[in-house]
Amino acid sequence: MADDRPVTGLRALLREDLLGEKPYGAPQLSVRAALNTNENSYAVPPGVVAEMQRELASTLPDLNRYPDREFTALREALAAYLSREGTAIVPEQVWAGNGSNEVLLHLLQAFGGPGRRAIGFTPAYSMHAIIATTTGTGWTHGTRSQAPERLFALEAEAVARQVRDLDPHLVFICSPNNPTGTAVDLEVIEAAYAAAPHAIIVIDEAYSEFARAGTASATTLLAGRERLVVSRTLSKAFALAGGRLGYLAADPDLIDLLRLVRLPYHLSAPSQAIARAALRHSDVMLSSVEAIKAQRDRLVTELTTLGYAPVPSDANFVLFGAVADSARTWQALLDQGVLVRDVGIAHYLRVTAGTPAETTAFLDALAALGPDHILAPGKTK
Amino acid sequence: MADDRPVTGLRALLREDLLGEKPYGAPQLSVRAALNTNENSYAVPPGVVAEMQRELASTLPDLNRYPDREFTALREALAAYLSREGTAIVPEQVWAGNGSNEVLLHLLQAFGGPGRRAIGFTPAYSMHAIIATTTGTGWTHGTRSQAPERLFALEAEAVARQVRDLDPHLVFICSPNNPTGTAVDLEVIEAAYAAAPHAIIVIDEAYSEFARAGTASATTLLAGRERLVVSRTLSKAFALAGGRLGYLAADPDLIDLLRLVRLPYHLSAPSQAIARAALRHSDVMLSSVEAIKAQRDRLVTELTTLGYAPVPSDANFVLFGAVADSARTWQALLDQGVLVRDVGIAHYLRVTAGTPAETTAFLDALAALGPDHILAPGKTK
Repeated sequence: MADDRPVTGLRALLREDLLGEKPYGAPQLSVRAALNTNENSYAVPPGVVAEMQRELASTLPDLNRYPDREFTALREALAAYLSREGTAIVPEQVWAGNGSNEVLLHLLQAFGGPGRRAIGFTPAYSMHAIIATTTGTGWTHGTRSQAPERLFALEAEAVARQVRDLDPHLVFICSPNNPTGTAVDLEVIEAAYAAAPHAIIVIDEAYSEFARAGTASATTLLAGRERLVVSRTLSKAFALAGGRLGYLAADPDLIDLLRLVRLPYHLSAPSQAIARAALRHSDVMLSSVEAIKAQRDRLVTELTTLGYAPVPSDANFVLFGAVADSARTWQALLDQGVLVRDVGIAHYLRVTAGTPAETTAFLDALAALGPDHILAPGKTK
Repeated sequence: MADDRPVTGLRALLREDLLGEKPYGAPQLSVRAALNTNENSYAVPPGVVAEMQRELASTLPDLNRYPDREFTALREALAAYLSREGTAIVPEQVWAGNGSNEVLLHLLQAFGGPGRRAIGFTPAYSMHAIIATTTGTGWTHGTRSQAPERLFALEAEAVARQVRDLDPHLVFICSPNNPTGTAVDLEVIEAAYAAAPHAIIVIDEAYSEFARAGTASATTLLAGRERLVVSRTLSKAFALAGGRLGYLAADPDLIDLLRLVRLPYHLSAPSQAIARAALRHSDVMLSSVEAIKAQRDRLVTELTTLGYAPVPSDANFVLFGAVADSARTWQALLDQGVLVRDVGIAHYLRVTAGTPAETTAFLDALAALGPDHILAPGKTK
C-alpha cells in the first residue's frame, strides 16, 4: 500500500502513521459475474422484502426521533438466532454495529490503542490490521503453516507460541479464514485463549454458516471465557451486505465496556428494522446457503481438474493457487466479464461461489485462458 | 463522569484512559413531552415516507450486494442541498457518515490521535471531547466569554489567543452552539483559521437551519480555506434523527484523506436511499423549521417572563439560567411528564423547542413549580 507522493498541503497534516496508506476497497465494477467480495449472489426473497417494508412502514414516519440506542429488540433477535446453534446466548451478550467492521472497531477502541498490540495470522481478513492501525494499535502479522499439505492452516501449538511471545492485548482469529477459506479447530482457539491471559480473543466468524459438516462455532466456547468474543455478520449467509449489520457475542461485562466507545445511536432505526425483519425469516434468508456450498464444492473439484490448486473451503469462496501470474489472470478474467479478487498472495486468486450460472461463467472463462495461466509444478516466478 | 469501581476482571483490560468514563447518552424515556435531545417533534410527512418506500422498494431486494462505497448519488444530493444556500458545493467536497458523530470521528481518526491535540470551547457539544478521547487525541477545554451581557459568547480575539497558545491539530467550533444555542460570527471562524495554521478547523453546524436572520453558514468561507470543515446533519431541521445521516463539506483533498480511516461500506444502502428521498423533498422536510423557530422564540420570551434567564438561541432549543437547582427542577419537570436536559452547567437547563402543545406542556409544568425553583438574583448555591 505504498504511496510515495510528496507530503505537502493537507497531507502534511495527516496522522504520521497513516502516510503512505491507501484506502481499502475492491473495485465496484459492473460485470456479468461479480465474484470478488464474497457477496451472496441471491437477492433477498420477495416475502422477506415485504416483511422489511412492513417494518419500515411503522419506522419511517418516526425517523424524526432518535433510534433505540440499545437496539434491544434487535439484540433479542440476534441472541435467539445464535441460540439456535445449540449454545444459549442472552441479549446482554450481544452487540451490533454497521457491519462487523464496526464491532471490530469498537473492540480495538476499547481494548487496543496506542502502546497496545494485536496479532492476526496472515493471510487473514485484511481489515483487522487496517482497523488496528486506525485505532493506533500495533499490529503483528503472525504466521500460518507453510507445510504443503497443511498450507495456510493454523495449528494450536504454533498459535500459542506466537501469542505467548507477543503478549498481545487482542488476538484475531478468522474462522473460516478469509481469504484462505478453511475453518480452524476449536482447540486452536482454546490454545490461544490459554496462552494470552490478558488478551481479548476475537474469533471472526463472518462465514460461519457456510462451514462444512463437523465444524463447530466458537460460541460453544463462550461459557467461562470472559475474554472470548465471536463476531458474525448478516452480510454473507444472510444475504444482507447492503444492510450493514455485524454483531458479536461475548460476556455481558465486555459488552458493557463497548458502550464507552460506540458513537451514541450508531445503529439507525431502519437498520434495526431491516435486520429484525430478516432475522424473523432466518430460514428463508439462509435458504441459499446449501446452493452456495454446492457451488463452492464444485469450484474446488473443477479448479483441481483444470490444474489449479484450491484450498479446502468452509466459506462461500475458494482461494486457488498454481496461478502463474495473479495480476495477469485477474485481468484476463475481467476482460471476459468475470471479476475475482487478487488478495496479494503470489500465485493465488480468490473467487466467490455464486449462482450456478456465475460459477460456470467463471470456470469457462478460466478454462478459456488455457494452460498458459497455470503455474508449472515446482516453479514460482 | 467519575466511576470509582475497582478495576478488576475485564475492566482491567480496558484502555487505561477510558477507565472512569461512563457511556454517553440521555435517558430514553416514554413521556408526554420529550424535549431533551433536540429532536424535531414533527413526524416525517406522509408524502416523503411514500417516496422513501419507493426508493427502498428497489433497494431492499438487492441488499445481498454491498452498497455504493462512495455513496455517489447521495453526495450529489447533499452538494445540491448545500449549494441552495448560495455557495456552490460540488459532490467531491462532501463526505457523510452514520450521524455527524461518525464524520467527526473520521476527522479525529485522520488528523488527531495519540500525541495530538484538539480544542473546543466549553460548554459545547460534549461528543467532541468524547470522540477525541476515543481516538486518543488530547482534548483542551477552551473557554467562552463569562461577561454577563455576553455570557457563553465566543469572541474572535479570545479564540485566536487560545488557539495560538495550544497550537492544536484540530479546532472545534459549534455554531449554533449546543447547548448554549447561539451562532458565532464568521469573523470568529476566520480568526481561528488564521491563528492555527496547522489545524483542521471544524465548524459543527448541526443546528444551522434554525439560525435567526442575518446568520451566515461557514460554508461561505470554504473557498480558499483547505483546512476548513463544515459539518451538518439531517437529524435536526430535516427531522431524520432515526436515519442517522451526518455529513460535511470541505476541500476535496481533505475528503480524500478521510477514505483512509472510514470503514469500507460504512453507509448502508437503505441509509443512502432514505437520505436521498428526504433530500429530494427538502422543502417538505424543512417545512417544520419556521414553526419550531416560533416556539423557540416563544420559549425565550416566556422563560424571561417566568423569571428565568434564557440564552439567545439560533437553534431548536433554549438554554435557560436562573434555575435554583438544576437537578431538582429537572426531576420536578419529569414528574410532570416533561423531559428536559441537565447539561451539567450549574443553574441551567436546556429545553428543546417542540410542537406548540409540547412547548405549552413544558412552560405550564415549569410555571407550576413556582418561584421556589428560580435562583434569587445575585445568588448561586
